[in-house]
Amino acid sequence: MGGDRAPAEIVAGARRAADELGIPVVLVGRPDELGDTGGLEVIGASEVIPMDAEPGSSVRTMKDSSLVRAAEAVRDGRASAMVSAGNTGAAMGSALLRMGRIRGIARPAIATPIPTPGASPTTLLDAGANAECRPEWLVQFARMGAVYARDRFGVEQPRVGLLSIGEEAGKGNDFTKTVFELLSNGRWAGDVGAEWIGNVEGRDVMTPTVDVVVTDGFTGNVTLKALEGALRALFGRLLVAIDTDDTSRRAGRMLAPALDEMARELHPDGVGGALLLGVRGVCVISHGASGAAAVMNAIRVAREMVAAGMVDHIAAVARGQPGAGGWSTPQR
Amino acid sequence: MGGDRAPAEIVAGARRAADELGIPVVLVGRPDELGDTGGLEVIGASEVIPMDAEPGSSVRTMKDSSLVRAAEAVRDGRASAMVSAGNTGAAMGSALLRMGRIRGIARPAIATPIPTPGASPTTLLDAGANAECRPEWLVQFARMGAVYARDRFGVEQPRVGLLSIGEEAGKGNDFTKTVFELLSNGRWAGDVGAEWIGNVEGRDVMTPTVDVVVTDGFTGNVTLKALEGALRALFGRLLVAIDTDDTSRRAGRMLAPALDEMARELHPDGVGGALLLGVRGVCVISHGASGAAAVMNAIRVAREMVAAGMVDHIAAVARGQPGAGGWSTPQR
Repeated sequence: MGGDRAPAEIVAGARRAADELGIPVVLVGRPDELGDTGGLEVIGASEVIPMDAEPGSSVRTMKDSSLVRAAEAVRDGRASAMVSAGNTGAAMGSALLRMGRIRGIARPAIATPIPTPGASPTTLLDAGANAECRPEWLVQFARMGAVYARDRFGVEQPRVGLLSIGEEAGKGNDFTKTVFELLSNGRWAGDVGAEWIGNVEGRDVMTPTVDVVVTDGFTGNVTLKALEGALRALFGRLLVAIDTDDTSRRAGRMLAPALDEMARELHPDGVGGALLLGVRGVCVISHGASGAAAVMNAIRVAREMVAAGMVDHIAAVARGQPGAGGWSTPQR
Repeated sequence: MGGDRAPAEIVAGARRAADELGIPVVLVGRPDELGDTGGLEVIGASEVIPMDAEPGSSVRTMKDSSLVRAAEAVRDGRASAMVSAGNTGAAMGSALLRMGRIRGIARPAIATPIPTPGASPTTLLDAGANAECRPEWLVQFARMGAVYARDRFGVEQPRVGLLSIGEEAGKGNDFTKTVFELLSNGRWAGDVGAEWIGNVEGRDVMTPTVDVVVTDGFTGNVTLKALEGALRALFGRLLVAIDTDDTSRRAGRMLAPALDEMARELHPDGVGGALLLGVRGVCVISHGASGAAAVMNAIRVAREMVAAGMVDHIAAVARGQPGAGGWSTPQR
């Protein structure tokens, strides 16, 4: 029921995931508003948390909302994962409320994959779950991010950097300098098989030089949206360039396949949504404008993360069990 | 002497500014290292502050450095403005040390113009002068940014937004929520003729919806570099798309003029560098990789800001003189 194009595009994406990928999707919402579900199972939920509702109070008071019921279905084993294109804060809140936090994780974080031309995506976290962070949380983000980069993108030894405003150790604000010190002792990296590469800058996020970028949820969200805005501005300007005169229009038609591929590669839809890391279940958050293709990709990612055992891997790391989950030998 | 391509490209840019724009440029540095200056006046300075030197101590101890001497030349009236592609922190430090702060301004800020397709650039400040900010400084940034947007880009009534993670008043972290309250009383906007439009997000920076975006220097610098990184990644990917096969290569050649224009429009070099606002003189900071064209543009911008009387306008605003500088009627 969530997302700017719900329920039609959500249902369409779910049906495509079932038909094309063979994933048994369960829909959660108002049965009479879903249209033709193509025979997919439906868990009834009478309420819908609006996109602009205050998340905290909504998830506590709207117990029969589709988001809260979806998280409940994961908790109860009726579903293996939840996927939402709805109110991000409420999706997080529902997952936290019904699935619960993984023991040892102070705060869940949103991990968003950023497309990187010619390489696997860079994982940015926290991309918006915690506007205010304590320095030690970012050490957990670094550990969870490393687990995720390996489980999702197959990065053997994820390179983890701290988002700051200069590469040298002394660069940053008081917060990042404290985090830098915490991360620099390196003890956090051994049992997750990560490599600490120090400070990185905004311009590094879309390059192949780093696999996981950790930051507080405020800076992460601003960065994520700045990147999206830059890509949108540039694609828009590119369409203008292609429409300059008859020659450019002809060239544009000749380039169409290559440009389509480029757009697909860089579009957020293609990478399949963000994950809420640190809760006891897979929770995929797709952006509000998600169409059927984005929803299908988000469902595909959910299945992959379930199959990879990502939540168990994070739980093992959070318990501080070096080597758990079949990872590399701890460094100390 | 400053910048990755100094002194050759700096001198070349200065000579072009003199030849093509008729601006009487004074070079500051080691006379025997400058090569052919084309007859431009040279102020001797025996020291060079390296790009990676610690700014604070460098400007205090290297009194005969090109940066400190350049700022001195402005203070003493031998030059009307300073332009540097060197160590940004040291350029700021030199300007602050030798020109001094404008009375009433707590902290100078770096104002960086962000290219916006189809519209005048958006001014982002603080883009990196103050990694740590007090909320009330951002009110001054908003006022200085509005003055600058009018003097530099001719924006009659600059729309000023606060960079945050959601448009609603309650969105953001503790710091931005405090700033939001300070800006929302609106009293700061009247005598600078600005319009307060509330929170904006990272994705708005490159759109025509806002003229001035205020933020702390940490978030601003991360955002600036994220935008640069996204543009670089996308241009890089575009070159790959154009080089897919013979057809795409032919199309690429047909599109070359339109793509060149697009690159020129969006390249940081084209907009001519950032300004340090709040010091008693014009101080233009061009990026470290500046070539001759970027240097010439930076010098052009310096002249324009001198001609516009921008420093006097900011000083008048800082003195709290509503209506000073020929601006709109104060609202209270």
